[in-house]
Amino acid sequence: MKFQVSSEIDYEVRFPSTLILNIHALRTPAQTVLEETFTVEPYVRIEEFTSVNGENRFARMEVTEPMTLRIAYRATVDTHPKTIDLDQNLENVPVVQLDGSVIPFLFPSRYCQSDKLYRMAYNQFGKIEGTPSRVLAIADWIYENVEYLSGSTNSQTSAYDTIAERAGVCRDFAHLGVTLCRALTIPARYFTGYAYQLTPPDFHACFEAFIGGQWILFDATRLAPLNGLVKIATGRDAADAAVASIFGNVVCTAMKVDCQVVDPDFVPFAYDRANLKGMSYQ
Amino acid sequence: MKFQVSSEIDYEVRFPSTLILNIHALRTPAQTVLEETFTVEPYVRIEEFTSVNGENRFARMEVTEPMTLRIAYRATVDTHPKTIDLDQNLENVPVVQLDGSVIPFLFPSRYCQSDKLYRMAYNQFGKIEGTPSRVLAIADWIYENVEYLSGSTNSQTSAYDTIAERAGVCRDFAHLGVTLCRALTIPARYFTGYAYQLTPPDFHACFEAFIGGQWILFDATRLAPLNGLVKIATGRDAADAAVASIFGNVVCTAMKVDCQVVDPDFVPFAYDRANLKGMSYQ
Amino acid sequence: MKFQVSSEIDYEVRFPSTLILNIHALRTPAQTVLEETFTVEPYVRIEEFTSVNGENRFARMEVTEPMTLRIAYRATVDTHPKTIDLDQNLENVPVVQLDGSVIPFLFPSRYCQSDKLYRMAYNQFGKIEGTPSRVLAIADWIYENVEYLSGSTNSQTSAYDTIAERAGVCRDFAHLGVTLCRALTIPARYFTGYAYQLTPPDFHACFEAFIGGQWILFDATRLAPLNGLVKIATGRDAADAAVASIFGNVVCTAMKVDCQVVDPDFVPFAYDRANLKGMSYQ
Amino acid sequence: MKFQVSSEIDYEVRFPSTLILNIHALRTPAQTVLEETFTVEPYVRIEEFTSVNGENRFARMEVTEPMTLRIAYRATVDTHPKTIDLDQNLENVPVVQLDGSVIPFLFPSRYCQSDKLYRMAYNQFGKIEGTPSRVLAIADWIYENVEYLSGSTNSQTSAYDTIAERAGVCRDFAHLGVTLCRALTIPARYFTGYAYQLTPPDFHACFEAFIGGQWILFDATRLAPLNGLVKIATGRDAADAAVASIFGNVVCTAMKVDCQVVDPDFVPFAYDRANLKGMSYQ
Repeated sequence: MKFQVSSEIDYEVRFPSTLILNIHALRTPAQTVLEETFTVEPYVRIEEFTSVNGENRFARMEVTEPMTLRIAYRATVDTHPKTIDLDQNLENVPVVQLDGSVIPFLFPSRYCQSDKLYRMAYNQFGKIEGTPSRVLAIADWIYENVEYLSGSTNSQTSAYDTIAERAGVCRDFAHLGVTLCRALTIPARYFTGYAYQLTPPDFHACFEAFIGGQWILFDATRLAPLNGLVKIATGRDAADAAVASIFGNVVCTAMKVDCQVVDPDFVPFAYDRANLKGMSYQ
Repeated sequence: MKFQVSSEIDYEVRFPSTLILNIHALRTPAQTVLEETFTVEPYVRIEEFTSVNGENRFARMEVTEPMTLRIAYRATVDTHPKTIDLDQNLENVPVVQLDGSVIPFLFPSRYCQSDKLYRMAYNQFGKIEGTPSRVLAIADWIYENVEYLSGSTNSQTSAYDTIAERAGVCRDFAHLGVTLCRALTIPARYFTGYAYQLTPPDFHACFEAFIGGQWILFDATRLAPLNGLVKIATGRDAADAAVASIFGNVVCTAMKVDCQVVDPDFVPFAYDRANLKGMSYQ
Repeated sequence: MKFQVSSEIDYEVRFPSTLILNIHALRTPAQTVLEETFTVEPYVRIEEFTSVNGENRFARMEVTEPMTLRIAYRATVDTHPKTIDLDQNLENVPVVQLDGSVIPFLFPSRYCQSDKLYRMAYNQFGKIEGTPSRVLAIADWIYENVEYLSGSTNSQTSAYDTIAERAGVCRDFAHLGVTLCRALTIPARYFTGYAYQLTPPDFHACFEAFIGGQWILFDATRLAPLNGLVKIATGRDAADAAVASIFGNVVCTAMKVDCQVVDPDFVPFAYDRANLKGMSYQ
Repeated sequence: MKFQVSSEIDYEVRFPSTLILNIHALRTPAQTVLEETFTVEPYVRIEEFTSVNGENRFARMEVTEPMTLRIAYRATVDTHPKTIDLDQNLENVPVVQLDGSVIPFLFPSRYCQSDKLYRMAYNQFGKIEGTPSRVLAIADWIYENVEYLSGSTNSQTSAYDTIAERAGVCRDFAHLGVTLCRALTIPARYFTGYAYQLTPPDFHACFEAFIGGQWILFDATRLAPLNGLVKIATGRDAADAAVASIFGNVVCTAMKVDCQVVDPDFVPFAYDRANLKGMSYQ
């Protein structure tokens, strides 16, 4: 599927600051960036770099005096996520066979205190047979028990809060999904992307679980088709994959995000209980 | 029912300190203290006082030099809790009709952050008809979803922790019961007592909900018969009804609690789904 | 001093609800309500009641159908707070001599987890001689270390958060003051009132510490003169003394608070390090 | 310096489980493992692997039936940490120049909620000139304000707790150091090792700050000489560098750790305010 994505962000820089933005579409075997532009007005030197595991494209810029900064990213991206048959015997890879690079996604992280929620996770999901069914049950449970409520949480909210307070936005839904998976010894990570048909338009967050040797996408919010995403980054949680990490004194004054399908024959894909297929953007 | 209760507590007082103990059997219309002794060795002046709402008997003592203190309380208590038909149309008293003295038991307190759990409470229990059934469902849910695990929590653990971590002792079970009731606008308070057949013997904690104009007892731990309790105190939570509040430097070195039935024909009473009766120690 | 105070609050009642408001000026030996009006439009039956300890005047109303409710309170109040010489040998009343009604103000409460902050309190303030100086040091420390920042906290924020995050509004400053006092075994309570010269006008919150047998007022925000307050309520914390406790579905759509001095010769009073005087509204 | 280190750990495996141990001495330019043995009784297949950034040596083993497992690690290690002159003009590397692999150590992590403590960090340490002095002030502040108290915390305790509760063990001291550094935009990471003269003997935890382009060690506990350490691992926090990560049901029944200096002429090194030198194990 071909998408046109864009984001425009205005910042009021009040004091010399450094910004690290994480809004570029990722380049992966499942996702080709056909063309892209990234502009900053006024001109500021931009450096692009990736993190150790390579699942993001950071743009770093230093602003040495107060100014109004306008950032614009535009890309045409061709995605070809793999459809995964969740019905088949996809097994959890035993910890002893997991690749060393996957192990950290079993550990708790800033917003995903899986060490605190393992009893809840086992009580609620421990009896479900099969890892795909467990993760689907987690996504369903979050959808049914957590209220999607704009403004109910902030950048410090973590899964420990959400399990009690039962309200949040996509970020919180994703963190809780990651946390419950890890609590059940299923590696899981945070996923950010552009999302087609998301209303209101914004950056989106989902989670990926590592099942049968691949990272499979789950969206507990059900706010966008699973094949309507353009991947920006993955990480342990939002601490790794924040849209912007700001060091200094900078205020975001406007943000506009957009994601359009270019292909005329796009067929939205969602989970279907009768025919369990998943999607992988690996 | 006639009970013999006792508690012996040894303290190592390391520094001049004041202790407020809350281990006397309460005197209420439903509970007569037939005889009791309270001794402290070596001799320390004891003052007994009650809190504003009268649902406890504090013993206060000042220890002006380091020493080993041995406290012993022994009482014969005749209890006659009322059996309440929970099946009947016992209604929640509307807030607008609640007595002013009951209102504070709707508010959140130190260990009972009902303001944070109302969504969870409404999701889980909001559709259940009738206040008695709701509170019974709360007690059942706690029993089924929280693991009774000695040593898993401490004196700072609150209901907000327990809803996530799903483990605790009687104090935590009671706090969670209180919290979920208040989150549903049902006044609820913390109850401490001596408990027959509690294993291992210890002080016990339950909760009371105010239904149909009376305080009805619930025990989410199911560790003692509901008619096997001798009431010590009630309060908003353990902050009001702690066994001991210590101001200074004092370490508890030994504690022994006992509760025996004197009546030979004691019939343990527990909830029975087929024949819903409750118990009130008001 | 004579004050004219008023508050107007508009509520959108979306569902049958009960409201308990706590905006009436208190009647105490130190404060005479000369005249007052309390109106609700459209007409709803109002019941006034007080809590057990009498330090508030609740107005309770049931709204049985969706409507827009306009509440207006207006009063002329004559206050005569006592000036207290903090320099003199005002001593902490030993716990063993405290009146039973004061004891609960030593215990932790919903927003004041004094049980968690006692080490911090002793490290920071334990070496200061004299209870008045300790409490003044607490108020100063809060003023100097916590940023007053509108919107930085919400109704769930507690002293445990503020000690780490170091930002808040008057409510948070008061909770932290209460907490640090209790952590040092100084009884303390939350105080709400109308405040002259508060900018922007709003309900104000301070704290009282029990020193030398009386409740003395402290304001860590320094936003209003200590003699410019009209007392509304005291309680363990904001859970007891909230401006509004709402049971149902009600949204506040507008609020206007005012406090004017009628006396032409009002002299604002603030702490003066050279001449330590305090103020009691008991 | 040449050290002989050892650790013996006994596990009661109650259920088929996987263990990931992190107790091997690291091999770095500053640390040579001269010889080592790692034995598990009874025999279990061991696989060694490292994490993405290579700063640990994990030993992974699967135990497929209940048993008592005895693990023993013994090594002779030659360390040659670099002495760093902290007095000189060692500067914080600006974010814009940091290597991509260092950036994650600016972000908050499970036990290091730097996003919540930046106001506290700026208030307390923001006015101190020079990054080395800032980090030394952080280590001093922790030493002076947090009580080292065995058993006061557990594996879920985080820096957010410690800043309020002011008690902990080496792990908590290290987490708080990491957090306050990151809150001031100084990259910091968690460091575990064997420590000479640590009493009682145990695994030790410290923190490293990235100053002037190198990772410099700080120990807020002051419990071991800075040149008496043998590095095991570094990571974002204890979630990355836990001694043991257990998936299954395993209980540690005994643990014995030892660290001896072989060189007869070892001179313990500690910070000296008069002659500021630091140490790097990079």
